[in-house]
Amino acid sequence: MEAKLQQLKTLMAEVMDLQAAAALLSWDQQTYMPPAGAEERSEQLATLSRLIHLKSTAPEVGQLIEDLLPYAETLPPDSDDARLIRKAKRAYDKQTKVPADLVAEFTQVTTLAQEAWVQARAEANFAHFRPHLEKIVELRRAYAACFAPYDHVYDPLLDDFEPGMKTAEVQAIFNALRPRQVELVRQITTRPQVEDGFLFLRYSEKKQWDFGVEVITRFGYDWKAGRQDRSAHPFTTAFGLGDVRITTRIHPRNLTSGLFSTMHECGHALYHQGIGRNLRRTLLADGASMAVHESQSRMWENLVGRSRPFWQFAYPRLQALFPRQLGNVSLEAFYKAINKVKPSFIRVEADEATYNLHIMLRLELEIALAEGSLEVKDLPEAWNARMQEYLGIVPPNDRLGVLQDVHWSAGLIGYFPTYALGNLVSAQLWEVIRRDLPDLESRIARGEFADLLAWLREKIHQHGAKFEPQDLIQRVTGSPITPEPYLRYLTAKYGEIYGL
Amino acid sequence: MEAKLQQLKTLMAEVMDLQAAAALLSWDQQTYMPPAGAEERSEQLATLSRLIHLKSTAPEVGQLIEDLLPYAETLPPDSDDARLIRKAKRAYDKQTKVPADLVAEFTQVTTLAQEAWVQARAEANFAHFRPHLEKIVELRRAYAACFAPYDHVYDPLLDDFEPGMKTAEVQAIFNALRPRQVELVRQITTRPQVEDGFLFLRYSEKKQWDFGVEVITRFGYDWKAGRQDRSAHPFTTAFGLGDVRITTRIHPRNLTSGLFSTMHECGHALYHQGIGRNLRRTLLADGASMAVHESQSRMWENLVGRSRPFWQFAYPRLQALFPRQLGNVSLEAFYKAINKVKPSFIRVEADEATYNLHIMLRLELEIALAEGSLEVKDLPEAWNARMQEYLGIVPPNDRLGVLQDVHWSAGLIGYFPTYALGNLVSAQLWEVIRRDLPDLESRIARGEFADLLAWLREKIHQHGAKFEPQDLIQRVTGSPITPEPYLRYLTAKYGEIYGL
Repeated sequence: MEAKLQQLKTLMAEVMDLQAAAALLSWDQQTYMPPAGAEERSEQLATLSRLIHLKSTAPEVGQLIEDLLPYAETLPPDSDDARLIRKAKRAYDKQTKVPADLVAEFTQVTTLAQEAWVQARAEANFAHFRPHLEKIVELRRAYAACFAPYDHVYDPLLDDFEPGMKTAEVQAIFNALRPRQVELVRQITTRPQVEDGFLFLRYSEKKQWDFGVEVITRFGYDWKAGRQDRSAHPFTTAFGLGDVRITTRIHPRNLTSGLFSTMHECGHALYHQGIGRNLRRTLLADGASMAVHESQSRMWENLVGRSRPFWQFAYPRLQALFPRQLGNVSLEAFYKAINKVKPSFIRVEADEATYNLHIMLRLELEIALAEGSLEVKDLPEAWNARMQEYLGIVPPNDRLGVLQDVHWSAGLIGYFPTYALGNLVSAQLWEVIRRDLPDLESRIARGEFADLLAWLREKIHQHGAKFEPQDLIQRVTGSPITPEPYLRYLTAKYGEIYGL
Repeated sequence: MEAKLQQLKTLMAEVMDLQAAAALLSWDQQTYMPPAGAEERSEQLATLSRLIHLKSTAPEVGQLIEDLLPYAETLPPDSDDARLIRKAKRAYDKQTKVPADLVAEFTQVTTLAQEAWVQARAEANFAHFRPHLEKIVELRRAYAACFAPYDHVYDPLLDDFEPGMKTAEVQAIFNALRPRQVELVRQITTRPQVEDGFLFLRYSEKKQWDFGVEVITRFGYDWKAGRQDRSAHPFTTAFGLGDVRITTRIHPRNLTSGLFSTMHECGHALYHQGIGRNLRRTLLADGASMAVHESQSRMWENLVGRSRPFWQFAYPRLQALFPRQLGNVSLEAFYKAINKVKPSFIRVEADEATYNLHIMLRLELEIALAEGSLEVKDLPEAWNARMQEYLGIVPPNDRLGVLQDVHWSAGLIGYFPTYALGNLVSAQLWEVIRRDLPDLESRIARGEFADLLAWLREKIHQHGAKFEPQDLIQRVTGSPITPEPYLRYLTAKYGEIYGL
């Protein structure tokens, strides 16, 4: 059995190596690749992904896993090997249940759909995108059908991003959250608005970059095992545990966009840099789920990066860098400005208080599309109706509405809820952290983050993908994912800022 | 047959994609990879090279080639498809004749040998490297034996870098060259030396970089299909025809090192950027050989970049960038300084007149090692004796002598002669170019390189690896590789500079 396990690990390590190569090709494409390289790069990525799929679904792998399952039962259930065999089984079943033809058709359809979406979005013309999205919904339903029986057709889609999570669970969480978050936002909009114009003066790009680097170096980002580059859309990518890179973007007339992106991606990277070396080159060398990953990025971006203690520490330094722009802006004014709440059309620009509402809207529409209770042709109307209901505003066109996100054109249905779940988990973890580290805030106010990082390393990071997300959160917080801590956090923070 | 050819092309395209991925991993390793990524990167590269070897040597590929050989006979002999099938046959035979065990042992031995060489070189301690080199020589002899019968045991080694070239041919060329080049260098050393101290003042790294970029942009380097980055050792690499990158290094106290490296790598890159799109993603999308590749890099670096007409054009601009350092240096003084001849120990720093002598020394030692007529233990002595004979100087230690190059530690035996052959080919082509483009020098003096590049594109670049190097040179120049043009070039140029 030891020999078979070793054989499985060797086969998986080969797949991990190919995935790392594909990730590097993709990182390069988004950072440094010259334009004429695009055509060949897409061929190279297609070849790699074909090989990865072939090797992941080889009958030899399936046989090894079947042989090893009884062995896994004899191991301590939390041991790396037991977890690895089960994870391999799960991944293998997922990948082999879907016919190759369906995979190929999906790839082809989404390639065309993304081109169509770019054009449709530029022209604010949903009709141009509609037939592509109809096809995508049809193919995602066919994909889900490969995993029948299920409680809900959306379950298999969600499971790709949040292993083990069920549609009913997400709905229960969001149903508890939505009315209270809508009400909070409604109350805020009745209050006098905070002034944030000074955030949109001209800020040197180099100084912005350097300040971001200073901040995440303090957070604990390990530059020996990573680097930061510029890209159109910030992202984190890893080529193993020793090379976890982030990207950011810097706007000359927006101080916060680049800075909070940098913190956000750093949060993802700290997670990956902290995965145990014992899980190296295995399927477990990954985050537990998208939501757990997002809990880390949002924690560093929001619970740390948009907190008063953090800016008690960091604001004098920022003022020194930008005396002309911030010299006359008080810490309190700055703190309020970076936490300004204002219902807006674009999800990625949304503040903490409204963000989840954007997600809930998408989740409800995705579920309805997957169920067939909503037709694609009726999507813009359904979108706008929910915008009105949750945020009190209606986008003037579909570019600012239903066409804003790339996800659906890429076939990503089931991904959105993980963003909101990540917010909830971040606050849920935070309550435990504050209990375990009573002087956390004063440490943050001194620019000390080592205890926080050590806590996250021990409780979350080191385990990689060993545990399913709900199991991990239960182990760490004593409860499954729940919206209460996030609501407490929002209410306290914004109640104080807006004097509710 | 059409279907089989398509099948072969598809299989080869997949291998090309994997090679491009490996090339990007290697580029990244030398430019941007953080240090902690090294271990996993070497695993990733090992996996890719194993897959590349497996796929290149698959019996399916061999069968397709055998089936297609009679078909190739029916095609026009210079057609892409006929050439491709023959090239595939050649590559397949080369790769399948060597037992997998020998390949694996060689990889393992050279990995250790490179580490040992780094240490041996740092300590100038040949004894530390000697057992590794002995093993490498033994394994290279075993490798050559896989291709028996041959005229000379060095033939199969040379053939890896110069397809079709025989040891006897190289020896004949170098035997004709050596005495005359030794004599030229001897005469030069009797003359008063030129002054070049001003090249080693402090020069802004940024301005050096920008000037290099200006120069190669003029040469015709296509930035839409490439980019330049910094690395410890300059190199050119390609991930397809649309992404051909170069690297350079800049020394703050050496004006010429970075600049001529940039031109050199640009010469390689122009070759690759000029390969016909019809050869894309096939084995023919490559240079004809290392020597032909080197002829392009050396042409742009030396025949263009170290010529008087080029600096008539470029020197005023360089002076304007560096008025403090060069304001009082005349064009003539600058031209002589960048062409200073001085026997020295280190090959990569050698001038045009002495460079080939470094190569001939290495070639003779390699042949003797391969034959078994020289033992590794006697290598340092043999090295130093030839240094005395050809260059009139003896290195004070092995770090400046036999331990200076990485090649042998990497198992590269048969590679060195291509450097000198490249010099010869560059001058041989140059004589034809000057005949075809009578006003070439005045164009260069005006900073116009389009005609030169167009000539190279038509005669050399577009053909990629369709023709064997000797065949290609014969077609273009009407003669096989010969040392006469290079000797004429050296004698005329250095005779004038040194008043011989």
